[in-house]
Amino acid sequence: MAESILAQLDVVLAARKDASPDSSYVASLHHKGLNKILEKVGEEAIETVLAAKDAEISGDNSKLIYETADLWFHSLVMLSQLGENHQPVLDELARRFGLSGLDEKAARK
Amino acid sequence: MAESILAQLDVVLAARKDASPDSSYVASLHHKGLNKILEKVGEEAIETVLAAKDAEISGDNSKLIYETADLWFHSLVMLSQLGENHQPVLDELARRFGLSGLDEKAARK
Amino acid sequence: MAESILAQLDVVLAARKDASPDSSYVASLHHKGLNKILEKVGEEAIETVLAAKDAEISGDNSKLIYETADLWFHSLVMLSQLGENHQPVLDELARRFGLSGLDEKAARK
Amino acid sequence: MAESILAQLDVVLAARKDASPDSSYVASLHHKGLNKILEKVGEEAIETVLAAKDAEISGDNSKLIYETADLWFHSLVMLSQLGENHQPVLDELARRFGLSGLDEKAARK
Repeated sequence: MAESILAQLDVVLAARKDASPDSSYVASLHHKGLNKILEKVGEEAIETVLAAKDAEISGDNSKLIYETADLWFHSLVMLSQLGENHQPVLDELARRFGLSGLDEKAARK
Repeated sequence: MAESILAQLDVVLAARKDASPDSSYVASLHHKGLNKILEKVGEEAIETVLAAKDAEISGDNSKLIYETADLWFHSLVMLSQLGENHQPVLDELARRFGLSGLDEKAARK
Repeated sequence: MAESILAQLDVVLAARKDASPDSSYVASLHHKGLNKILEKVGEEAIETVLAAKDAEISGDNSKLIYETADLWFHSLVMLSQLGENHQPVLDELARRFGLSGLDEKAARK
Repeated sequence: MAESILAQLDVVLAARKDASPDSSYVASLHHKGLNKILEKVGEEAIETVLAAKDAEISGDNSKLIYETADLWFHSLVMLSQLGENHQPVLDELARRFGLSGLDEKAARK
C-alpha cells in the first residue's frame, strides 16, 4: 500500500540521523545537536511569518509555501532527534478534531 | 477512498474560515486577522522549542508532541487564511526529497 | 548622581522578583518560572517583527516602539530571573564597539 | 556630559546606516533590507531563549549575556532602519513604570 509523503520522509530522516555528518544536511544537523536544530525551527518560523506578511500584500504565496515546508521539515528533524516521527503529531490533531486516522494507522502495518 | 488526517483537517478548517467568529476558535482567529494568526504561529514555535529542551532532559516527549501539533495546526490556519492548504507544502517536501506523491495526488481526485 | 532608566528598572524588577505572585505582573511571571518568561520573550519578538513589517508600510512607528519596549522589558525579567541585570549586556555591547562605558560604571558606585 | 552606551551606539549605527554595504556588518544588513534585519531579530530571540534554558541548568550566564546583547543590538539596527533609535523605547519603559527619565532627556540636548 502506498505510503504518504510524511511517512516516506520519516524513513529518509531516520536513515540520515545516524549517517556521517558529511553525508547530508540532515546528518550534519543531528551531529551539531538539538540546539542547532531548534535554532533552525525558530528561524524558519520567523521566515514563515515574514513570508505570510509579504504574501498578504503581493498575493503571491510561493515563498510562503517554501518557508512553511522548511518549518515542517525542521520540525520533523527535531522529532527525529528526540526519537519521534510525524505520526503522533497527526494522531494528536486527529484526536482534537475527532478525525478518522484509521486508514493511516492501517497503512503503517 | 480514505483521506489523510491533514486532508480531513483542511476540510474542517475551510468550513470554519467563513463561519461566525463566535462559532469556533478557528473562526475567531480568522476574524481577528493574519497578524493574530502569525502571533500564534510564533508563540507555538517558541513553546515547541521549550518543550524540546525539556524533553531532552526528562525523556518525556508528550509535551513536545502536543506543542508540535499546535505549531502545525496554526500553520494550517495561516495557510487557510491565505487561500492555501497543506497539499502544496507536502508537494514541496516531496519535490525536494524526490518522494512519490502520486498516491496522494490520486486521492485528491 | 542620576541613574539611567534601565538602572532604575533593574531596581524595580529586583524588588518585584521575590514579592508575592499576586502583587504584580513581574512577580507573577517569576512565580510561574523561566519557561513562562521565555514564552513571553518569544511572543514579544514575534509581535515586534510584525509591528516592524506594518510600520514599514504605514510609516507609523508607535506600535513598533511599544512592542520593542515589551521585548526589552521581558528580556530584563529573564535576566533578573537568572540573577543578572542590564549592565553586563550593555558592557558586552560597549566591548564589541569599542565604546566608553566608564561613566556608567562610575554611576554604579 | 558623558553619553550612555546606548546613545553612543545609536551614533555608530546611524553612521553605518548609509555607508557602503561592504564597509560593515550593519551596513550590509541595511542594504539587504528590513526582512533580513527582522530574520536576525527572530534568530537572536531564539538563541537567547536557548541560552537561558542552558544557563538555568549550567549556572553559567555568559552565553545568555552574549545572546541578549545580540538581540538588543539587532533590535537597535531594526529601529535605525525604520528611522528610530533607542530613546523612545526607554521613554516608553519609563512611562510605564513611572521612572524619571529627566537626566537622559537632558543629556540629549
